Amino acid sequence: MRIYGDKRSGNCYKIQLLLALTGQTCKWTHMDILRGDTRSPTFLEKAPAGKIPVLELDDGRILTESNAILNFLAAGTALVPTTPFEHAKMLEWQFFEQYSHEPNIAVARFIKLYLGLPAARREEYEAKHAAGYRALEVMEQQLSRTPYLLGEQFSLADISLFAYTHVADEGGFDLAPFPAIRYWLELITTQPGFVSMG
Amino acid sequence: MRIYGDKRSGNCYKIQLLLALTGQTCKWTHMDILRGDTRSPTFLEKAPAGKIPVLELDDGRILTESNAILNFLAAGTALVPTTPFEHAKMLEWQFFEQYSHEPNIAVARFIKLYLGLPAARREEYEAKHAAGYRALEVMEQQLSRTPYLLGEQFSLADISLFAYTHVADEGGFDLAPFPAIRYWLELITTQPGFVSMG
Ligand SMILES: N[C@@H](CCC(=O)N[C@@H](CS)C(=O)NCC(=O)O)C(=O)O
Ligand SMILES: N[C@@H](CCC(=O)N[C@@H](CS)C(=O)NCC(=O)O)C(=O)O
Repeated sequence: MRIYGDKRSGNCYKIQLLLALTGQTCKWTHMDILRGDTRSPTFLEKAPAGKIPVLELDDGRILTESNAILNFLAAGTALVPTTPFEHAKMLEWQFFEQYSHEPNIAVARFIKLYLGLPAARREEYEAKHAAGYRALEVMEQQLSRTPYLLGEQFSLADISLFAYTHVADEGGFDLAPFPAIRYWLELITTQPGFVSMG
Repeated sequence: MRIYGDKRSGNCYKIQLLLALTGQTCKWTHMDILRGDTRSPTFLEKAPAGKIPVLELDDGRILTESNAILNFLAAGTALVPTTPFEHAKMLEWQFFEQYSHEPNIAVARFIKLYLGLPAARREEYEAKHAAGYRALEVMEQQLSRTPYLLGEQFSLADISLFAYTHVADEGGFDLAPFPAIRYWLELITTQPGFVSMG
């Protein structure tokens, strides 16, 4: 198994964290987006959407989309609930992450951390902030009731949402008004096998 | 079971189509977004993210995110592959839909069909078009090799991506250069139980 990824990208870090938590290993090919690695014909042949992370199995089969890769690598572990409703709730949080959280928090972080918040993208940055804070409020509501997003069970939902929430400050987000999120971030770092980003 | 939704919304139509294809019924509460139904305190208490569709079980449990609802309602049917890799490929397409397809194609459609393409949103519309066409190219590549997104098996991946692809023309997309997608759209309308949107 091989991952094509960049460990500073939250979507790729999800995979790195899952592998560490489940004691799996995987070869890793570093991809530099700014250098154009995701635009090369060889890469696009593997992954037509041109995005990392990409998982390549030993027989050459390819799986993309960070959250799909998580589901594949964690199948059968305690990180994936087995009852149909709980399983669907886990997917709910993962789709929420891709639709309402990552496009705001990860993109605000990109604009601030990688591009240095240029004036031309200030308006977009403000819009991403407003929507990103709404996503954080949805998480805070759940986490003020239960330790993990699904309740008592640490699951893939937490891994998916940890990735960009724990670096939201790099996108200019202030987590002070979100005590339950801050407690949950701490709780995740205490999981056996936890590794930091990078 | 009750769905809160609007049948003209592709995300809600996914659920309507799944129910029809699997012969299930469900009560339906119509939600008018423009009238503010998704901003009411009662609705936000059920669904803090404030988006439709929402599934409410008879015991009051709530599930949101169209693709998570599909997974719940189709669990155990032939629409969900049982081998881990195929199952993850299905999720891959569903995450692709939420990240790279819906935010471009559904939003371009909203700007054109519902808002009448105002000058202030022309630039955003063009950007959505460029990214939406890239998503269609990814689908075309797969569908020019296999009848369905996962190969021979009709699955939730097809239902998720059918929803907004079959109305992409209402968002100003021209499907003429995508013969495999056009064939696949036809093939889906021939599934036993198929219902049109609306
Ligand atoms: N939905 C994808 C998003 C992946 C994504 O956006 N990856 C970024 C890096 S974090 C990328 O490859 N960007 C390069 C590009 O879009 O050209 C996932 O969850 O894997
Ligand atoms: N990721 C969500 C998206 C749902 C969504 O955006 N629904 C729209 C209607 S198609 C909505 O409720 N918009 C109201 C709002 O965002 O205020 C899903 O797949 O269910």
